[in-house]
Amino acid sequence: MTNNTHKTDSPVTVIGLGLMGQALAPAFLKAGHATTVWNRTAGKADHVVSQGAQLAPTVGDAVKAGGPIVVCLTDYAAVRELLGGSEVDLAGAMLVNLTSGDSAQARETARWATERGARYLDGAVMAVPPAIGTDAAVILHSGPEADFQEYEPTLAALGTVTHLGVDHGLASLYDAAGLTMMWSILNAWLQGIALLRTAGVDAATFAPFAQQMAATVAGWLPYDAEQIDKGDFATEVSTLGTHTRAMEHLIEESETAGINAELPKLIKALADRAIAAGHADLEYAVLIEEFTKPG
Amino acid sequence: MTNNTHKTDSPVTVIGLGLMGQALAPAFLKAGHATTVWNRTAGKADHVVSQGAQLAPTVGDAVKAGGPIVVCLTDYAAVRELLGGSEVDLAGAMLVNLTSGDSAQARETARWATERGARYLDGAVMAVPPAIGTDAAVILHSGPEADFQEYEPTLAALGTVTHLGVDHGLASLYDAAGLTMMWSILNAWLQGIALLRTAGVDAATFAPFAQQMAATVAGWLPYDAEQIDKGDFATEVSTLGTHTRAMEHLIEESETAGINAELPKLIKALADRAIAAGHADLEYAVLIEEFTKPG
Ligand SMILES: NC(=O)c1ccc[n+]([C@@H]2O[C@H](COP(=O)([O-])OP(=O)(O)OC[C@H]3O[C@@H](n4cnc5c(N)ncnc54)[C@H](OP(=O)(O)O)[C@@H]3O)[C@@H](O)[C@H]2O)c1
Ligand SMILES: NC(=O)c1ccc[n+]([C@@H]2O[C@H](COP(=O)([O-])OP(=O)(O)OC[C@H]3O[C@@H](n4cnc5c(N)ncnc54)[C@H](OP(=O)(O)O)[C@@H]3O)[C@@H](O)[C@H]2O)c1
Repeated sequence: MTNNTHKTDSPVTVIGLGLMGQALAPAFLKAGHATTVWNRTAGKADHVVSQGAQLAPTVGDAVKAGGPIVVCLTDYAAVRELLGGSEVDLAGAMLVNLTSGDSAQARETARWATERGARYLDGAVMAVPPAIGTDAAVILHSGPEADFQEYEPTLAALGTVTHLGVDHGLASLYDAAGLTMMWSILNAWLQGIALLRTAGVDAATFAPFAQQMAATVAGWLPYDAEQIDKGDFATEVSTLGTHTRAMEHLIEESETAGINAELPKLIKALADRAIAAGHADLEYAVLIEEFTKPG
Repeated sequence: MTNNTHKTDSPVTVIGLGLMGQALAPAFLKAGHATTVWNRTAGKADHVVSQGAQLAPTVGDAVKAGGPIVVCLTDYAAVRELLGGSEVDLAGAMLVNLTSGDSAQARETARWATERGARYLDGAVMAVPPAIGTDAAVILHSGPEADFQEYEPTLAALGTVTHLGVDHGLASLYDAAGLTMMWSILNAWLQGIALLRTAGVDAATFAPFAQQMAATVAGWLPYDAEQIDKGDFATEVSTLGTHTRAMEHLIEESETAGINAELPKLIKALADRAIAAGHADLEYAVLIEEFTKPG
C-alpha cells in the first residue's frame, strides 16, 4: 500500500468521464499530473478541462498521449468495443482498467490487450467517487508487478493503491469478496433494525451496538482463517449445534414480528446442511465446505 | 455499562451448570461472591464446588439461598419446567434469566415469574464461555431498571453488563439482531474465501482485507441510521442501481467458479425488489422497506 505522497508532473490519461472518471481526472490534476481525458459524450469533459485537463480529439489520440491510460467505463464490453476500434493503436500502451467486472472478463481482457501489444493492469475501485484522492479510497490492482511498480507513483494520486498479484483476475475477485462483506453487513444491520423497531428501538440506538458486534466478529477472522486454511474445525468456543438453536429463535422472532425472514432462513439452511453432513459438534467455520460447493 | 470493578461477598445463585453455567459460577466466585449452585445432573457441580461454590441439595434450596438467582438452561421451556415445580417457592426471589430465547418467551416468562411473586430480569449473553468474567463479555439485560441497578454490582462480575430498557423482550431482540450481524459477517467472509480460493488466495491473506471492509462499512452505520430513522434515502454516494450491477458480477463470479451462489442471489433478490418498487436511484438503506415486511 502506498499513500498519496508522490507528486509529479508525469502524464496520465483518463478514458471515461462518468461519475467515477469525473473524480479520477481531478485527483491526477491535483497531484500535478499532465492529464489527458476523453469521453464518448464530449460535453462531460467540460468540468475537468476547466480544472486543467487536456481533451483529446479522438480516443486514438487519448491513447497516444503518453503515460498510463486509466480506463473507467460501464463494463468490460464497452472497454473492448471502444479500444478495439480500427482507429485505436494499442501497441506500447499501458492500460490500467478500473472498470468493474468479473475475474474471467479481467483475464480475458488482459489477453486481448496483450495480443494488441499493450501492457495491462486490471483494477477495482473500492470507493465512492467523493473518496477518490483520499487515503480512504482503496484501489486494488492485479497484473505484472513491474508494471504496477512503474506506475504506482502516478496511480497513488487516486488513494491507497495495492498490488494483489500477477493474476489479472485478483482485483475483481477481491472486489466481489469485499462487496459481499459490505452488502452482508448492511443487510444484517437492516434485519436488526426491522427486529428492534418492533419494540420501538430506532436505528440510531442500534448503531453503536451493531458497530461493536461488527468489530468483535471482525476480530475473530484471523483465528478463523487458521482453522479454515488448515481444514481443522475442532470446537474451542461454540458448536454449530448451539448456533442453529439460536438461528431458530431468529427465524421465529422475525416471523412473529411480521418482518422479512429470508436472511434468517438462508443462514439456518446453510448451517443445517453442514449439520446434515455430520458437523454439529464442529466450529462455525466448517461451513466453508458449504460455501465452496454449489448450493 | 459497568466494568467488573465491584468486589463483594454478597450471595448469588447459579442454576444450570452447562457450558455457560460452568463459566458463570467461577466468575462470581472470583469476584468474591458467596455462590450457591444447582444443576439437574449433580456431577457437573464438582468442578465449581472444588473452586468454592456451595451445592444446594435441591433446586428449591438453591432458590432460597439469597441474592439474585442467575438461571442459564437450554431454553425457556426448561426454565419454566424446573422453576414451576411444586417444591419451588419463587415468592420474593430475584430471577436473572440468561437463557437464550425470543422476545415473546422473555415477556411471557416475566409475567409467569411475577405471578409467582418473583422479580424478573431477562438477559442475553453475547459471549462465549471463555470470555465470561472479562470486559469482552457483553451481557444485555432488560426489565425493571431498579432491579437491574440493585444487582448490577453483582452481575458485573460476569463482564460488561448493560440495561437496555424495561421491556423484558429487549435483551432477546438485541441478541437476535447482534447474532444476525455475526452470522452475516461470518457467511460473507466464507463466501469471499470460497471466491478467492479459486485464484489460490488463502483465508489468512484475505483476513486483513475482510477486517478493513468490515470496519469501513461499520463506520457508515450512524450516517445510515439518520437516513433510516428519517425515512429519507436521497442519493449522496451511490445508487441501488449501481449496487445491483455489481451484484450480478458476484453471482456470475460465484456460479462460474462452481461455488455456492445462494447468498449472492438473496442479496440481489432483495435489491431487485426495492428496484421494482421504484427505488433504483435511492441509497442502499431504502432496503429497510423490504426488511420490514414479510418476504
Ligand atoms: N460510481 C461509483 O460509486 C463506483 C464505485 C466503484 C466502481 N465503479 C465502477 O466504475 C465504472 C464506471 O462507473 P460510473 O459510476 O462512472 O458509471 P457512469 O456514470 O454510468 O459512466 C459510464 C461511463 O462509461 C462510458 N461508456 C459506456 N459505454 C461506452 C461505450 N460503448 N463507448 C464509450 N464509452 C462508454 C460512458 O460514456 P458516456 O458519458 O458517453 O455515456 C461514461 O463515461 C463502473 O464499472 C462502475 O461499476 C463505480
Ligand atoms: N455456550 C455458548 O457459547 C453460549 C453463548 C451464549 C448463550 N448461550 C446460552 O446459554 C444457555 C445455556 O447454554 P450452554 O452452552 O450452557 O448449554 P448446555 O451446555 O447444553 O447446558 C444446558 C443446561 O441446561 C440444563 N437443563 C436443560 N433442560 C433442563 C431441564 N428440563 N431441567 C433442568 N435443567 C435443564 C442442563 O442440565 P443437565 O446438565 O442436567 O443436562 C444444563 O445445565 C443456552 O440458552 C444458550 O443458548 C450459550
